[in-house]
Amino acid sequence: MNKIRVISKKDIEAHLNMLDAVRAVEETYVLNSEKEIVLFDTVFYDFEEGKADMDIKSGTVDKAGIFGFKLMSWFGENAKNGMETLVGNIMLYDRKTGSPLALLDGSSITGMRTGAAGGIGTKYLARKNSEEILMVGAGNQAPYQIAAHLMLLDGIKRVYVYDAMSYESAVKFCETIKEKLFNDFLSRFADNPQFFNELMKKYDIEFNPVDDIENAVKKADIIITATPSRKPMIMKEWLKPGTHLTCMGADMVGKQEIDENIFTVARVFTDDIEKTSKTGEMEIPIKKGLFLKSDIICEIGKVIKGENPGRLSDNEITLFDASGLAAQDLITAKELLSKANQNNFGVVVEL
Amino acid sequence: MNKIRVISKKDIEAHLNMLDAVRAVEETYVLNSEKEIVLFDTVFYDFEEGKADMDIKSGTVDKAGIFGFKLMSWFGENAKNGMETLVGNIMLYDRKTGSPLALLDGSSITGMRTGAAGGIGTKYLARKNSEEILMVGAGNQAPYQIAAHLMLLDGIKRVYVYDAMSYESAVKFCETIKEKLFNDFLSRFADNPQFFNELMKKYDIEFNPVDDIENAVKKADIIITATPSRKPMIMKEWLKPGTHLTCMGADMVGKQEIDENIFTVARVFTDDIEKTSKTGEMEIPIKKGLFLKSDIICEIGKVIKGENPGRLSDNEITLFDASGLAAQDLITAKELLSKANQNNFGVVVEL
Repeated sequence: MNKIRVISKKDIEAHLNMLDAVRAVEETYVLNSEKEIVLFDTVFYDFEEGKADMDIKSGTVDKAGIFGFKLMSWFGENAKNGMETLVGNIMLYDRKTGSPLALLDGSSITGMRTGAAGGIGTKYLARKNSEEILMVGAGNQAPYQIAAHLMLLDGIKRVYVYDAMSYESAVKFCETIKEKLFNDFLSRFADNPQFFNELMKKYDIEFNPVDDIENAVKKADIIITATPSRKPMIMKEWLKPGTHLTCMGADMVGKQEIDENIFTVARVFTDDIEKTSKTGEMEIPIKKGLFLKSDIICEIGKVIKGENPGRLSDNEITLFDASGLAAQDLITAKELLSKANQNNFGVVVEL
Repeated sequence: MNKIRVISKKDIEAHLNMLDAVRAVEETYVLNSEKEIVLFDTVFYDFEEGKADMDIKSGTVDKAGIFGFKLMSWFGENAKNGMETLVGNIMLYDRKTGSPLALLDGSSITGMRTGAAGGIGTKYLARKNSEEILMVGAGNQAPYQIAAHLMLLDGIKRVYVYDAMSYESAVKFCETIKEKLFNDFLSRFADNPQFFNELMKKYDIEFNPVDDIENAVKKADIIITATPSRKPMIMKEWLKPGTHLTCMGADMVGKQEIDENIFTVARVFTDDIEKTSKTGEMEIPIKKGLFLKSDIICEIGKVIKGENPGRLSDNEITLFDASGLAAQDLITAKELLSKANQNNFGVVVEL
């Protein structure tokens, strides 16, 4: 007889905070750079092109004692019925016995761990005196990126928000982002007043929508991209020395957010060399022969461990190319399961 | 917010009976022969060769309104700790919205649907005047095969049981099988006294262990194989005219239970042409050039629908080669979920 813990979206929203996600993703990155993670083949199926698809990403993290998967579906028509378009779940299993351990909502963990991933890349690579962030893309993922970045960085004064689809989206985003940061991220630290107060100050800064991306890129110290773009929006000539780019959008063949020539001048780091070279932002520069897999400095896990210094000077352009690892979900889920076992949230059921 | 129903092994053992499984598997076979089932690529991972592995089999059955997967692990060392070696689960999702519908224990459904599959193949292909069955293999799957066969066939008088590993296993199996049939299969029909009484008579027959497989094959009207064998145990010369074989063991490359020459004389049916030609009992005869994929008469679904007569005379040798479809699990799970929604077993939890 097996007992598993079911952890709902509501539980996750109440109990998983961005610090948990950062801890889990840093652990993942270190394990990944130590070759301690095995990812299995992804299963992908297009139910109806452009309308509905699903994928199953699975893998094992022997050192963490778990294996498991995340199944995520995208059903575009759900929006018409007021339902979420992205649904799915994560399951964890005991690596020693194969027994199922936990079933968790997938979309809420994905949002947090992706925000954490971007924030970590920037924390280790951007100039310490960075003050201005340009957020490219005002979609679902943008609040997570901003929440993680502002939490992990000190001294940020201003965030510019650009949306390629419409300036109005960027305007609307800037009008509501503070409330969102307070409600969805800050509130989860209510039990830690000192951290809460520090974070509140970090979240209480200027958010400016921008229409002219070239001008915004020229000012930005840090650029985050999180869009489904298939053509470059940011040109190499616009970048000032010392800029850091965190590219989160490209996670499958054909996606591209930035000028491929940026790869000829940047110091490039990734979450996973094999994966990003095939499906990350660097896929196209590699295919065009502008960049080689061997030009990658290293996986970010080595920078986290101190085995690589990351940025070498304030004049360099640095780039973090992340296409996401299922192990981030598994380890974040494991972190949350430990918390749930301690604090008894979620529901334990017999399976 | 999603609500899903969790249906435990205990629930399944109390509520899923062999008739439900037969109904679900017949539905699967018909849908499969109508090309209404899409199976995705299988994910397989060997944690430690010969000690632990896992696979994820997934697919969609649009006509049944569901998609989903079965994840099964085998952890050989579990036996030492008194735990089951085969563990895993099935999950169903709504094909219209992607929402998760149910989480079910996997091993108990697998056992039932595999028993049902074998019984169905034999029901449609064996001579109606068959009286003697030879069960080859006295492992986990044998009771399921026997339970389904005796339920679906009329006039069976005797079951011979052969185990290639040890005669003692066959003896022990025959000593305990009736109790097992009564406790694990018959008891689930307590609410249907007429069917219960008929089935009790069908289960209350002779079970004889055999040491000499050649002699048993010569007598048998029906031969069921359910072993992990990698070399033939049954030779073509031993078969009498009119024999039917249901081969359940071969489900991956390299497995073989019967003489490949049997394929040169038998009328051969399968659960799925593509799958059995690659991983079923026919894999080796095809590779040796003794049998062609085009020699397959048809998928059993066409026989169930009446589009193919199946057996043509009492003198023919017929063969049902089944290597199993994940859709059998999904549709059996769906059948059980409907029953659970009606009779309110299992636990509904928020996800």
